[in-house]
Amino acid sequence: MPTFTVFKGSNEGKVVESQTTRPDIKGDEVYVKITASGLCGTDEHYRHTDMALGHEGAGVVEDIGPDVKTLKKGDRVGWGYQHDSCRDCEWCLTGRETFCEQRAMYSSANLDQGSMGSHAVWKAGFLFKIPEGLSDADAAPLMCGGATVYNALRMYDVQPDARVGVIGIGGLGHLAIQFAAKMGCDVVVFSNTEGKKDEALKLGASKFVATKGIKAGELDIGRKLDALLVTASVQPDWKLILPAMAPDSKVFLLTVSPDDLVIPYMALIASGISIQGSLVAARAIHRQMLAFAAHHQIKPMNVEYPMTEEGITEAFDTLRAGNMRYRGVLIPQ
Amino acid sequence: MPTFTVFKGSNEGKVVESQTTRPDIKGDEVYVKITASGLCGTDEHYRHTDMALGHEGAGVVEDIGPDVKTLKKGDRVGWGYQHDSCRDCEWCLTGRETFCEQRAMYSSANLDQGSMGSHAVWKAGFLFKIPEGLSDADAAPLMCGGATVYNALRMYDVQPDARVGVIGIGGLGHLAIQFAAKMGCDVVVFSNTEGKKDEALKLGASKFVATKGIKAGELDIGRKLDALLVTASVQPDWKLILPAMAPDSKVFLLTVSPDDLVIPYMALIASGISIQGSLVAARAIHRQMLAFAAHHQIKPMNVEYPMTEEGITEAFDTLRAGNMRYRGVLIPQ
Repeated sequence: MPTFTVFKGSNEGKVVESQTTRPDIKGDEVYVKITASGLCGTDEHYRHTDMALGHEGAGVVEDIGPDVKTLKKGDRVGWGYQHDSCRDCEWCLTGRETFCEQRAMYSSANLDQGSMGSHAVWKAGFLFKIPEGLSDADAAPLMCGGATVYNALRMYDVQPDARVGVIGIGGLGHLAIQFAAKMGCDVVVFSNTEGKKDEALKLGASKFVATKGIKAGELDIGRKLDALLVTASVQPDWKLILPAMAPDSKVFLLTVSPDDLVIPYMALIASGISIQGSLVAARAIHRQMLAFAAHHQIKPMNVEYPMTEEGITEAFDTLRAGNMRYRGVLIPQ
Repeated sequence: MPTFTVFKGSNEGKVVESQTTRPDIKGDEVYVKITASGLCGTDEHYRHTDMALGHEGAGVVEDIGPDVKTLKKGDRVGWGYQHDSCRDCEWCLTGRETFCEQRAMYSSANLDQGSMGSHAVWKAGFLFKIPEGLSDADAAPLMCGGATVYNALRMYDVQPDARVGVIGIGGLGHLAIQFAAKMGCDVVVFSNTEGKKDEALKLGASKFVATKGIKAGELDIGRKLDALLVTASVQPDWKLILPAMAPDSKVFLLTVSPDDLVIPYMALIASGISIQGSLVAARAIHRQMLAFAAHHQIKPMNVEYPMTEEGITEAFDTLRAGNMRYRGVLIPQ
């Protein structure tokens, strides 16, 4: 029986290389040779479970099932989270089958993923063609990180004349700056220190604010923010940032946190601010995101590691230490 | 010098009748004889300050300044909060001069109001003609309570086919049920006990849920909510209610609270829920609200009190004790 390689998590948190039998490719299935995988902060959650790692994949179609009509051998494709879906719930009906109600969120038993390995088998509907002008390594981090920030900007009517704040410059933030700037927005970046200032400005920010030492009530950025993308791994000091939000502005929560959201109530009411939980994109928006990225040459700043146990472990360690600038990408050797 | 009567708050919280000199009516000013005033929960905040009480007014135009072109003597008009505004900030440019950035919110020194008294002087632009088919007493509570709930439904694209939850049946809630039902929505009302069930159904709710005793994870309302209007004076049990919210649904915070908002973070993210702070309406929406109320005969359930020190005090006491069903209205004797 032919097999392929998959890198999985394990109880003790060690990255484990294993072999999986290659199944017959049936129906609408597609057999993909993996060429790159991003490493996302949420991968940390799966590192202690016995499942394939990675949900920012890029690869080449090697085989297709008899019902596949939209892809052919040799096509370059990308993918994020996915699973079989009910095709009947609100999520499925709006192109976001990833969050189908039949599946529990963040349950390892109920969510299909896998972009760290040699190959993967996916349904054709969950694969996105990578446009010309984007390499596989540059496309991979867009499959979750790019989709997440683009979805917030695109689904919730952030306008080209908006002033957009981005808190945190990491895997999500450094993409958010580029997408928002290319959409025409005036981008203000908030980071703890001045360390990433030059890079933020190069990526398209028009203003950079190092928040360390600024007290609540003392933040003055001039024109207020119409939208704020929170991409930092810790929640911001809301008392500092909310006074910089314009009437009717929107705060997007883009990172995962086990904590409660604790935010001053009257500041929301008094300025008509909304707090929007946002997820990776519907399939239609995901496709638009890729086309937009290719058109404007929006690319992640990648740090490449070999797709091996050691390479993946090193990438995890670098990310956990807060030293990834800005997206780790695993490349098969 | 001619004078008129105004009821004010005072340091010790006593309602005080006083006389004010009637000024010359200049420019775009309008002199209004007050015929009714609603009593809103937020009036409690002003009871301990030396300022005119009330921001849900109705009356008849008695005199107009030389620059007034849109009103004439004898017109029936209503008004809410108001003040001179900068005409230059985001609020002013969008018809919400009440929240002009030049004025601090909820500062007695900076906010003009007054609907408890015999007369009032207002700028013409802050007065709304009361449509035929709405009495003064029925129109008064719409000037803040009605505008607040209508604004949430109308400004943020709640659709006619939405399932709308209303938490709390009081001054705001009993209007929210009517507006949402007449917009075509399927309205689900949440209250602590069964006490107000019959009234909620008569007002247009299709489902009533007494939440007392229901534990988090046990609430089952069938089809989930697309929007939720929080009109209760205490914050709901979010762990109970959020699982009943549909993907992309909206939670509207409509009451004032000095506390922080504390809400499970992942529940927002995982369902793409937004939390929207909402205020009384822009002038254009306020006018639409009145026309809609008149067309559909949406009326508050009023409890009338005489517009005297004793009457106003009794209305305050009833409201504070949680016994107002559902809006106190002061009527001059």
